[in-house]
Amino acid sequence: MDLWFTEEQTPLLTIGLKVRKVLEYRQTGYQELAVLETEQYGRMLVLDGCIQTTEVDEPSYHEMLVHVPMATHPNPRRVAVVGGGDGGSIREMLKHPSVEEAVLIEIDAGVVEAAKRWLPSLSSGLEDKRVQIVHTDGKEYMAKVAQGELPPFDVVVVDSTDPVKAATGLFSEAFYQTVRQALNPDGILVAQTESPWVNQDLVTGTYQAMARTFPLARLYLSVVPTYPGGLWCFALGSLGPDPLEPQGKPPQGPCKYYTPELHKAAFVLPAFVQELIGG
Amino acid sequence: MDLWFTEEQTPLLTIGLKVRKVLEYRQTGYQELAVLETEQYGRMLVLDGCIQTTEVDEPSYHEMLVHVPMATHPNPRRVAVVGGGDGGSIREMLKHPSVEEAVLIEIDAGVVEAAKRWLPSLSSGLEDKRVQIVHTDGKEYMAKVAQGELPPFDVVVVDSTDPVKAATGLFSEAFYQTVRQALNPDGILVAQTESPWVNQDLVTGTYQAMARTFPLARLYLSVVPTYPGGLWCFALGSLGPDPLEPQGKPPQGPCKYYTPELHKAAFVLPAFVQELIGG
Repeated sequence: MDLWFTEEQTPLLTIGLKVRKVLEYRQTGYQELAVLETEQYGRMLVLDGCIQTTEVDEPSYHEMLVHVPMATHPNPRRVAVVGGGDGGSIREMLKHPSVEEAVLIEIDAGVVEAAKRWLPSLSSGLEDKRVQIVHTDGKEYMAKVAQGELPPFDVVVVDSTDPVKAATGLFSEAFYQTVRQALNPDGILVAQTESPWVNQDLVTGTYQAMARTFPLARLYLSVVPTYPGGLWCFALGSLGPDPLEPQGKPPQGPCKYYTPELHKAAFVLPAFVQELIGG
Repeated sequence: MDLWFTEEQTPLLTIGLKVRKVLEYRQTGYQELAVLETEQYGRMLVLDGCIQTTEVDEPSYHEMLVHVPMATHPNPRRVAVVGGGDGGSIREMLKHPSVEEAVLIEIDAGVVEAAKRWLPSLSSGLEDKRVQIVHTDGKEYMAKVAQGELPPFDVVVVDSTDPVKAATGLFSEAFYQTVRQALNPDGILVAQTESPWVNQDLVTGTYQAMARTFPLARLYLSVVPTYPGGLWCFALGSLGPDPLEPQGKPPQGPCKYYTPELHKAAFVLPAFVQELIGG
């Protein structure tokens, strides 16, 4: 059988992947979830028709999303992932021995279940005793932290879907302000903010919101071939350390993408990206 | 009409682009040539079904292919492009005032004609009086230079199609050795060498061939979203200056992608790419 998955990355652009097997396909309470076995990029998680992660290319996303803030912070002990139900971000956070508590705030329990079943290389850390999994809205959870009902964080990463449905609010200045109040002194927030090739307004808007919210804001890049545009942005806001002068330690575990040298090089932006954020 | 172009980037992976208009479609003496007007990435040149260049994303390819060697060389006066009939590489070379002669060695006159007609933003430099266009095989031309029948070059860039048909030999160690003999002292060769996500053996092989041929070889990266894998490799061989310590001047003209800072950052490789080249 010649079976292909196609994603409409924009109304004008598609990616297609040959599929060996549909491992899971169902409607959760929040979205349409599929796990597909592709021949090019290994197993792949798809939510509402959009590729979330593949076994082959996920390191360039998860390692850069997580290790940049974690190596920047001098001593990240209590950390959080908003979204990220596949477990890839938690797995990377646990490579930092300073971590005492890692909270995964994933609204959709179906994603975590599917990752545990089909994506063990991503979800391996979810059973770790330092990890707490909460199935609730990230905005509501962070509001409780900001109000002092729950203890604050040293590092928060927003590992969200594209800005649609429940994730829309995660790209807002209001949410960044809430997270700022949910951070300890020296705390750091990083959010994935899409591609400068196909989503320029979003890159500009989220960076500017981050810059209005935090005393220090910076944009950095990675490359994720299954995401639209490939070149991928991360907006970082810091209450303390500058990621260009990391105060912490690199991850204590093997990495496929991140290196301490790449940590710094990722902030050197192509001219058109610099222009997008007013540089 | 809902018209789509689809490229089989590998037998397991496709890219699709909505097409507004087919501007040209014909068989040249060498290949099937199409110029399509896409809505996502502007006008696009397609050879034998493979995307060669689009108006929107071409700067990340041409500027990085050309300015890295041109800013590294202390005084590039006589330069060559092998392939590159769209003119994008020549346009970038002419941003260096030291250039006295720029030779475009493009086997297929049909590509140059199509670029002049449909892609003026790329082909604008081809009428410049410093430019000489030669429609012959790049290997044969460089062999003549190597044998002293034609004057040598300071910088040669290989702006080829994928390693199929006439371009196959351009990815060989024999060709690199010929170019080495076609260079002046301090001369530099750069070749595009595909993506480390989908063409790992080629990345390793071409880099090793470059390293055996030149006293100094380095690999650097850019990101081209319409190319398979997005992340794109360039193998550089130098008889003199190290690209990490550029001895020349940056381009004298506006760039959309290249900056002197990015020139250096492009050599900082992700862990898995470093591993591919034995680092």
